[in-house]
Amino acid sequence: MREVSVIGVGMHKFGKFPEKRVEDLGREACLKAFQDSGVEPKEIESIYCGLALDEMTPGQRIGYEVGVPGVPTYNFENGCASGSTAFNDAWKAVSRGVIDMALVIGVESMSPVISGVIPIPPTVLMVKMGMYAPSLFGIFAYRHMHDYGTTLEQLAMVSVKNHDNGCLNPYAQYQKKFTIEQIRNSRMISDPLTLLDCSPTGDGAAAAIICPTDIAKKYTDRSIKVKASVMAVGGYQSSAPLLFSYEAKKSANEAYKMAGISPKDLDVLEVHDCFTIAELMWYESIGICEKGESGKLVEEGVTWLTGELPVNTSGGLLSKGHPIGATGVAQIIELVTQLRGEAGQRQVDDAEIAMALNMGGVNPGLIMGLAGNVFNVANTHILSK
Amino acid sequence: MREVSVIGVGMHKFGKFPEKRVEDLGREACLKAFQDSGVEPKEIESIYCGLALDEMTPGQRIGYEVGVPGVPTYNFENGCASGSTAFNDAWKAVSRGVIDMALVIGVESMSPVISGVIPIPPTVLMVKMGMYAPSLFGIFAYRHMHDYGTTLEQLAMVSVKNHDNGCLNPYAQYQKKFTIEQIRNSRMISDPLTLLDCSPTGDGAAAAIICPTDIAKKYTDRSIKVKASVMAVGGYQSSAPLLFSYEAKKSANEAYKMAGISPKDLDVLEVHDCFTIAELMWYESIGICEKGESGKLVEEGVTWLTGELPVNTSGGLLSKGHPIGATGVAQIIELVTQLRGEAGQRQVDDAEIAMALNMGGVNPGLIMGLAGNVFNVANTHILSK
Repeated sequence: MREVSVIGVGMHKFGKFPEKRVEDLGREACLKAFQDSGVEPKEIESIYCGLALDEMTPGQRIGYEVGVPGVPTYNFENGCASGSTAFNDAWKAVSRGVIDMALVIGVESMSPVISGVIPIPPTVLMVKMGMYAPSLFGIFAYRHMHDYGTTLEQLAMVSVKNHDNGCLNPYAQYQKKFTIEQIRNSRMISDPLTLLDCSPTGDGAAAAIICPTDIAKKYTDRSIKVKASVMAVGGYQSSAPLLFSYEAKKSANEAYKMAGISPKDLDVLEVHDCFTIAELMWYESIGICEKGESGKLVEEGVTWLTGELPVNTSGGLLSKGHPIGATGVAQIIELVTQLRGEAGQRQVDDAEIAMALNMGGVNPGLIMGLAGNVFNVANTHILSK
Repeated sequence: MREVSVIGVGMHKFGKFPEKRVEDLGREACLKAFQDSGVEPKEIESIYCGLALDEMTPGQRIGYEVGVPGVPTYNFENGCASGSTAFNDAWKAVSRGVIDMALVIGVESMSPVISGVIPIPPTVLMVKMGMYAPSLFGIFAYRHMHDYGTTLEQLAMVSVKNHDNGCLNPYAQYQKKFTIEQIRNSRMISDPLTLLDCSPTGDGAAAAIICPTDIAKKYTDRSIKVKASVMAVGGYQSSAPLLFSYEAKKSANEAYKMAGISPKDLDVLEVHDCFTIAELMWYESIGICEKGESGKLVEEGVTWLTGELPVNTSGGLLSKGHPIGATGVAQIIELVTQLRGEAGQRQVDDAEIAMALNMGGVNPGLIMGLAGNVFNVANTHILSK
């Protein structure tokens, strides 16, 4: 198995761009990735594109507009983890020698089709009964408060922190600071989660070019190594551990093992903060703190930009935005940017090892009340200098 | 690279099942594939699922219902070639040693969401102007008649042949014979294509279990080898050769080379007969006859069940049906069934080498009138005893 590196990255700003097509969003991200890497479009051997909502062959359509028509193209849907799924499959192909040079795209155009909550398959009976993501995470929030003494202020702090970070990221959907009071006083969405406890819908794209590390070195000295890429998928389980994700745990633990590190070695972390409570739940699931300790972790400043382990320096889903298929690739781009030392005002000093956790899908067990985890797919990537 | 074999297959009958969920369709196909192979669900290491229309994480949802929860699951969308794309990516993973045992699913539930033509991205301007698939293929038909003297009767014969074959396939959506007159006299859809020149919409699923040939032999002596798996994607091209698919040609030629055969070695062929004219166009594109000769090939009986090279013995898309994501996997199942000698009344004698061509997507060049090919993805698979 060959070591793989990210050789170039590019993004289309996340935001509301209802007038743009998927091609427009993806094109800008890809052209920046070409420029960033020094790779020419004709060198790309395969395209791996993540997109969650209904579009036909988005990878081909974007490839056609950026000078990469006619290469094998795979379009992936894995809910909110579509982008990192495309990255994972591309990594497999490059690491196993199927191809040398892959273009990974994450893209989503939500504005023309969605307002409000992300549509979840109506065959999921709990969803038919009104149990959309905000409803579930609202329940998780109250349960976390009940079980562990987590406070509404601690939840709000996650949003304050991520919006603070988003102010320093020109690609973020929102560049605006909020106070705890403003977050608590924003419109109630699903008690106790307010509007600012929830990630927004939006449009955007992210692209990365990957190749074997040996080849990457010929192009640039700014390439970043992929030390682990792991997908974990939801299994059968009791509904008891509502506040914990076995998939996130499994995915992260396998990734730590693959990279030969422990959570203590992480310098930068992007986690899937679709809701403030989600960020806290994943802290506990991936082992950066004990169960029930996540609220304190935020309150004590550990995961703020100036803390010991900054989390969601990009602004996270809460502030950077969450155009579904783009999110997983954008998280990886934040890791690359930090590890290169190119994150500007949000740069984490001496960042050497960074991890991203992207989650998506709905656990089919929810249909029967048999699964405690709302999410079905957890993809973990660990990158290093 | 390891040789890969298909160790077991299963289908849910194609047809109109608006009351069934994607899970119901997929479950039946997968359970049959397990029974057929002797493989147990717990032995599956990864799921590769093809589905074209909007559903979230279908592979996980089906896996959950058939005892395969919790394995890495990739959901692919590549238009009408989604199923064969899933098969191609699974083949790569098994042949390169990423995993040993993969479950490939093709599935689609169209009845609840579609009546009439398959929706094509509205960003394709020619589609906005009314250029849906039937419109394009109607133009192709008239042009083929003009350029090569192909007749309306020859077009209709493709449908007669495939419906004859479909009568012998219990999994086909339609088991009904038609005469040339009945086909010509059916409702006009897009001049000169009538209703029976067009494949129907429908629901269905197909599943295949693949593993290295060495391992397959331990389970069964009915395994079938995958000799080639090739995806070709549409490039930039002039609009001149409207009646020819460069992708189909490229995909087939690379597959012939990979398998070490020529078109003359084929005993059984499934091609993407979304319309009668399509079957003729692909004959010429993949080199089983010269340009302009396809009409005669059908008229002379070469591609009928009793001919030299039977094509679409399953009934093809015209009679077996075309639940989009399921089609590519179902084609491969027909090859396996024929090569095993298990095709019953539609069995081709001494079938040793078989090929399937699955096509999908819309060439982005159509937007600008820059591409002659309506299709964007051509996947070719060659299997042998």
